[in-house]
Amino acid sequence: MHADKQDVLKRLNYIEGHLGGIRKMIEEDKYCVDILRQTYAVRKAIEKLEGLLVEGHLHTCVPEGIAEGREDQIIQELVQLYNLAGNR
Amino acid sequence: MHADKQDVLKRLNYIEGHLGGIRKMIEEDKYCVDILRQTYAVRKAIEKLEGLLVEGHLHTCVPEGIAEGREDQIIQELVQLYNLAGNR
Amino acid sequence: MHADKQDVLKRLNYIEGHLGGIRKMIEEDKYCVDILRQTYAVRKAIEKLEGLLVEGHLHTCVPEGIAEGREDQIIQELVQLYNLAGNR
Amino acid sequence: MHADKQDVLKRLNYIEGHLGGIRKMIEEDKYCVDILRQTYAVRKAIEKLEGLLVEGHLHTCVPEGIAEGREDQIIQELVQLYNLAGNR
Repeated sequence: MHADKQDVLKRLNYIEGHLGGIRKMIEEDKYCVDILRQTYAVRKAIEKLEGLLVEGHLHTCVPEGIAEGREDQIIQELVQLYNLAGNR
Repeated sequence: MHADKQDVLKRLNYIEGHLGGIRKMIEEDKYCVDILRQTYAVRKAIEKLEGLLVEGHLHTCVPEGIAEGREDQIIQELVQLYNLAGNR
Repeated sequence: MHADKQDVLKRLNYIEGHLGGIRKMIEEDKYCVDILRQTYAVRKAIEKLEGLLVEGHLHTCVPEGIAEGREDQIIQELVQLYNLAGNR
Repeated sequence: MHADKQDVLKRLNYIEGHLGGIRKMIEEDKYCVDILRQTYAVRKAIEKLEGLLVEGHLHTCVPEGIAEGREDQIIQELVQLYNLAGNR
């Protein structure tokens, strides 16, 4: 993992805390729309986290892997990540 | 909240457990691509959960709200949910 | 169709013109990244157009359909639109 | 452009034809939901086209660019493409 580890863990804490709040809202039968506003915020936070991980990967593992002659593997992984990112 | 509460809570448990696994992978400096495969799975699980909440909302709160004469509020909330869902 | 028709057609013109530009770039073997920047712009323009159509639908057909007693159809269509919008 | 040119142009033809059909539906004031079903199909077709372009880029320009010592440019473009793809 090559993104800033402390930043990534801090964002993960935030997401886990947010999900705990959503659990409470569901248990207390809060209004669907208010719960959905929170799940969309969590989804956005996960997408932001993914962006950081991808950027770290592109700046570190990709050039390293290519320098080590693992270009085929690196390219195939990038194709797969692109497809996963778009849920295709 | 009008989706099946037990189903929603079960899905939330799964998401929280999955995030715990991702935290462990980050702390142990696993390979970025393997972490990203997991975050995409979590994102997909949250989108599935949102789909259930939206469906419950459309089948319950929307007709109820309209029957109670709160049509304007209901429509405005749906516009907002649609925009949030697409992160627009 | 209940969104502002002239606005919708103007946006459609823009999208079609943009696609013509992309066709030219492909025929002239331009750099992939430059082509992709254009296709992302087109995708964004289509998402914006969809947002207008959805908003028009929610403000017009939805209340009308419910007033006419076609609530079940209206709700089912909204569930379907939500799922299509997220490509789920 | 390094994806299969004939395939890419065929897909572009399909998208342009589809948009022509949508224009006709709008001019004839068809039902919003039927128009939206078509715009979602167009969006999906564009995403598929983008996937082909990205794959072509990853398999061709990326290894070429790196072999030619333009690694920094290549990586920065990939970061930018990833962010554009997610409309972030």
